[in-house]
Amino acid sequence: MTEQDIIVDAAKLLNLTARALQKVGVPEVDARITADMLVTTDLRGIESHGVAHLAAFYVRPIRDGHINPTPKTRLTSESPSTAVMDADRGLGFVVGHRAMNEAIRRAESTGAGFVAVPNSTHSGAGSYYAMMAAARDMVGIAMTTGGNIVIPPGGSKRAYGSNVIAVAAPRGDGPPFVLDMATSVVAAGKAEIAARRGTSVPEGWILDAEGRPSTDPRAFFTGGGILPLGGDLEHGSYKGFGLALVVDILCGLLSGAGASVVQKGTFSQFYGALRIDAFLPAAQFKALLEAMEQALKAAPRAEGAGELRIAGEIEGELERRRRAEGIPLHPAVVQSLRDMAKELEIDYGL
Amino acid sequence: MTEQDIIVDAAKLLNLTARALQKVGVPEVDARITADMLVTTDLRGIESHGVAHLAAFYVRPIRDGHINPTPKTRLTSESPSTAVMDADRGLGFVVGHRAMNEAIRRAESTGAGFVAVPNSTHSGAGSYYAMMAAARDMVGIAMTTGGNIVIPPGGSKRAYGSNVIAVAAPRGDGPPFVLDMATSVVAAGKAEIAARRGTSVPEGWILDAEGRPSTDPRAFFTGGGILPLGGDLEHGSYKGFGLALVVDILCGLLSGAGASVVQKGTFSQFYGALRIDAFLPAAQFKALLEAMEQALKAAPRAEGAGELRIAGEIEGELERRRRAEGIPLHPAVVQSLRDMAKELEIDYGL
Repeated sequence: MTEQDIIVDAAKLLNLTARALQKVGVPEVDARITADMLVTTDLRGIESHGVAHLAAFYVRPIRDGHINPTPKTRLTSESPSTAVMDADRGLGFVVGHRAMNEAIRRAESTGAGFVAVPNSTHSGAGSYYAMMAAARDMVGIAMTTGGNIVIPPGGSKRAYGSNVIAVAAPRGDGPPFVLDMATSVVAAGKAEIAARRGTSVPEGWILDAEGRPSTDPRAFFTGGGILPLGGDLEHGSYKGFGLALVVDILCGLLSGAGASVVQKGTFSQFYGALRIDAFLPAAQFKALLEAMEQALKAAPRAEGAGELRIAGEIEGELERRRRAEGIPLHPAVVQSLRDMAKELEIDYGL
Repeated sequence: MTEQDIIVDAAKLLNLTARALQKVGVPEVDARITADMLVTTDLRGIESHGVAHLAAFYVRPIRDGHINPTPKTRLTSESPSTAVMDADRGLGFVVGHRAMNEAIRRAESTGAGFVAVPNSTHSGAGSYYAMMAAARDMVGIAMTTGGNIVIPPGGSKRAYGSNVIAVAAPRGDGPPFVLDMATSVVAAGKAEIAARRGTSVPEGWILDAEGRPSTDPRAFFTGGGILPLGGDLEHGSYKGFGLALVVDILCGLLSGAGASVVQKGTFSQFYGALRIDAFLPAAQFKALLEAMEQALKAAPRAEGAGELRIAGEIEGELERRRRAEGIPLHPAVVQSLRDMAKELEIDYGL
């Protein structure tokens, strides 16, 4: 947070979010599910995927008819361990919650469950879905195609999605292991935050509209694009690019929707769960996870590097602290919430 | 290839490889399977994982008793879609072939199959196993822990494995989509090749024994280590690190063996298959893959960048050409094969 950030209470923020979604037609239970996902994301410090986008990504598209607030999701194909769940252009959060529960149900009976989702919309942070499975002692996997903002290796223009991979696994004590990463060098939200805060971005993140390297985050919003994880060919950009295509294959191709490079206006997702006790006792798994983390933390550090942090560790600590102390939001985000409440004629209440 | 490379015939190389493995006690069928995997890897241009290591990684450890040439693999747990297959310290290729076939069998009946493998040894290139599933119209997944050669973000010494992810998917015509990547910036074999050829490596690949950046590939072999994909924190090294831990979780933890950071002397693997027609008709999937690739190749290129290549494309072309024209091997590799044949008292025959 910075000194300008405004602290808001998590419960109040959840209620405002749910009120806004209900006002535009989302049923109460779905509105509460979505609000919990958005606020949990802010609690965990992933401010690029929290309520900052409530108005622009979700409330407005619902009002404009681009997102269906009452989707009739249905399975268009299935086998004991797999399904395709048509999202009916529903809110990505609502659909993702249903699809991950479907994957979990299948993993309960066969050991593994995978659900591909076409015709969906923006689903927020993948970590939430992956953690749903981890809470049931499963390894959870959530993937989504992203907006077409990434420049392929050797390319000059954005061409494919920031395609996200999230994986979660349960710990014995404390928050789960949670990896949640765009397959680009950074998520678009990071450039957005830098632009909002007026700071520059490191070299190797973006190219401008002419395909030249830039450290000005605004270049991303004026026709530029983000580079794949790895950055350039010598440092493995073909790996970031290849991982993005794996996400496209699992989300876009298995669902029948098509890859991010050809998709227009919808997103595809892929949810999976592996039941740990189908492989070994969950307690043994958790002890092995603990031993892995202890050994990694005990490895030699570079001078001044501080403690090694494991995926999900910082987010888990932030969540615990922010549930007690509140969530710091940038004034522009708070203003967008206030404007939204006024426009929707609902109680602001933060 | 360079001008010093020596061209060898693929069929003769396969026969020599199988002869060597049989001579040290590998049954004929397993020796042929392993030889096909090693030679296919060289055919595909992945010289870091082919016959260059036949003597040092496989033949010698079998003779020294570190690898079991006749493993009694067995399932120690199973559910309809999952299994744990104990490798009995068998040759990683033989065990991996059995485990992937087990995953494919389960995917045939339930739509998805996943097999975790403890107590295994070096299994070569992951792409071969993933392609076994792709050949059956499945999405194939193969992962393995690697030797402990990677330096975690902010670390000064190698601490965990180069942990590999391979994913394959079938194309309508031509070779499959195949991503096969270490979760480090590069595989260790790339540093080995540079050292063998006496060239330097790019900045951002390795740190030396004192944790300082180095462009001398020999620094890797004298106590240094390789960096995670992403390189540094600003460019996503926590993503490469996090992906490596996902590989550890699926290979090392689900198998009960433990993560790469604590494993000594054995490797763990994870094999998976998703049956495409459990989701949608395979022909539709292949058409979507084709459309994805066409659209990506049509995207604007930087000046002088050449055509965009999709994972597996260059390897597929090389394989076709080298099957006809032979495989170029470095003289040091040819010498190691000649020495091995002499030591084993088998016909060299290349």
